[in-house]
Amino acid sequence: MQRTSFDQMQCPIARGLDRVGEWWSIMILRDAFHGLTRFDEFQKSLDIAPNMLTRRLNPLVESELPERRQYSEKPPRYEYVLTARGRDFRPVLIALLAWGNRQFAKEGVAVTLVDAKTGDPVEPVLTDRQTGRPITEHDFTFGPGPAANERTRKRMAFVNRAHPLPGQSALWED
Amino acid sequence: MQRTSFDQMQCPIARGLDRVGEWWSIMILRDAFHGLTRFDEFQKSLDIAPNMLTRRLNPLVESELPERRQYSEKPPRYEYVLTARGRDFRPVLIALLAWGNRQFAKEGVAVTLVDAKTGDPVEPVLTDRQTGRPITEHDFTFGPGPAANERTRKRMAFVNRAHPLPGQSALWED
Repeated sequence: MQRTSFDQMQCPIARGLDRVGEWWSIMILRDAFHGLTRFDEFQKSLDIAPNMLTRRLNPLVESELPERRQYSEKPPRYEYVLTARGRDFRPVLIALLAWGNRQFAKEGVAVTLVDAKTGDPVEPVLTDRQTGRPITEHDFTFGPGPAANERTRKRMAFVNRAHPLPGQSALWED
Repeated sequence: MQRTSFDQMQCPIARGLDRVGEWWSIMILRDAFHGLTRFDEFQKSLDIAPNMLTRRLNPLVESELPERRQYSEKPPRYEYVLTARGRDFRPVLIALLAWGNRQFAKEGVAVTLVDAKTGDPVEPVLTDRQTGRPITEHDFTFGPGPAANERTRKRMAFVNRAHPLPGQSALWED
């Protein structure tokens, strides 16, 4: 995949998607959060050929999202267990689930987030950890962090061009 | 893409990913949230050939994430503006951004969520809208909603198999 240098070097979304940026990768992670660990469980759940599953699992393992463990020597069999980095992907899956439910569940909600104790449905909402305020478009935007390079600063100025930094109003002027 | 019937019919994550399930689609949405609207802006940002960009934009427009508007007749030119459904994807992007920053920003954070007024970095966290509790794995799980079919109920019982429903302990028994 081609990338602009903003993406290659700086964008955390691009970096994340580098590891999970296709349908199958995210479905494998979903299955892992559903408690599936074994190669043949994923294969059955996702209904794909073993060589295809291997091809999709390998980059995930390389990115240390699941780790591969041998659980049988004869025949050799492996399980794929979420790492801390993989488990940390859960908010993305939940945000996807909530979006899918809000936008595409025409006949009603089939799978939802629930309170583990009561089983009651729960509406997940992104909030600012410090203040508890919901992350609305009005109150929260994107901005450069300490490691931002010139190009990233320029793009972030463009994102917030209602109040651009001096001399940084245009994204494409180099 | 092949799908199991659980995915085709019920899984909200699969339904969402159906619309955005490749790297490019999500990058286009990211750019749209950055304020890009015009075909040539996306093309320049993503550094792809026009025919490839068209091929990626069309399914997004069909899914009503951006809508396509003509802004010039001669020459014919179009812009792509996020719909309400498209804007509703923002929490997913922010969750991806936060994950990317936590896991892959080795040399420091380059792009982050900030308070729009103060510019201060903000840590987004998923919480239960009603109680404000953070969505931890311990306290919140996945469960069947009102529209869940038999297969979905079985899978959700498997997910929560520490406390499975009677006779629903195995995922694959049909």
